[in-house]
Amino acid sequence: MTTTTTPSILTLDALLTHWQGHRGLTRRVIEAFPEGQLFTFSVGGMRPFGELAWEVYGVTGYNLQGLTTDDWSWNPPEAAPPHDRAALLAAWDAQTPQLDAAVPGIDPAWFVVPQTMAWGTMAPLHSVLYGIDNEIHHRAQGYVYLRALGITPPAFYER
Amino acid sequence: MTTTTTPSILTLDALLTHWQGHRGLTRRVIEAFPEGQLFTFSVGGMRPFGELAWEVYGVTGYNLQGLTTDDWSWNPPEAAPPHDRAALLAAWDAQTPQLDAAVPGIDPAWFVVPQTMAWGTMAPLHSVLYGIDNEIHHRAQGYVYLRALGITPPAFYER
Repeated sequence: MTTTTTPSILTLDALLTHWQGHRGLTRRVIEAFPEGQLFTFSVGGMRPFGELAWEVYGVTGYNLQGLTTDDWSWNPPEAAPPHDRAALLAAWDAQTPQLDAAVPGIDPAWFVVPQTMAWGTMAPLHSVLYGIDNEIHHRAQGYVYLRALGITPPAFYER
Repeated sequence: MTTTTTPSILTLDALLTHWQGHRGLTRRVIEAFPEGQLFTFSVGGMRPFGELAWEVYGVTGYNLQGLTTDDWSWNPPEAAPPHDRAALLAAWDAQTPQLDAAVPGIDPAWFVVPQTMAWGTMAPLHSVLYGIDNEIHHRAQGYVYLRALGITPPAFYER
């Protein structure tokens, strides 16, 4: 993907606001599930929303690791994460100030240089954008689960 | 949203590639539905995927209008779009070269200045990013519908 031949139009501040806005909305979707459904209910044989949210947490952790250490190796936890909303929310909230600290310190030149990552060769910027896209994608699946449960999800446009 | 106080990290070229990549994936999701289900099947009382895709088309058209004329008024079509896949795909494909033509010509300074839009005060950049997010969101709902129909959706990571 070409990243240097036309003017740049997104700042690190705007990226951080965008990212945290999506994370806040996903947090509200986690909270909207009945406790007994978060890790059990699904549609079409897909994973329950709690498992999707833990995946999003893991991808955010991967990007945080890379952004702060330039180590882009993939080191998933050995044990599956707990089926426990409080643990999920606590882990989620612990990432919030880590992102606030990491993003403003990114070197813009380094950010757009492709390198070897867990999912192929891409720039850190595109790993972050991919992670946000993946979060929107899985969160939207949670919206369908909530509707199928008769629950009105949080407004998509509120960040 | 602050857009000018930290270095910029996304070029217009990269934005165009990102946007078209998502549009191509959404097109493949439209094609993955059985013809008889695209405008009828849904989960949880939500709209069928064909209607969601027409919404995405409309938002892309809104952004195209604004990017090329700086007219950000919302002018929805008077008639509901047809429940017809061929018409949807033809409309979709007609937007593709329009985006290719419009995005490289964006003035980066103008792109980040907030102005009055259909959904409040925001910069054109953020209207475009919101449109892409909305596309990912609704497309992911289509993924759930496909899974509920027993159909494997296109790979999320292929653009």
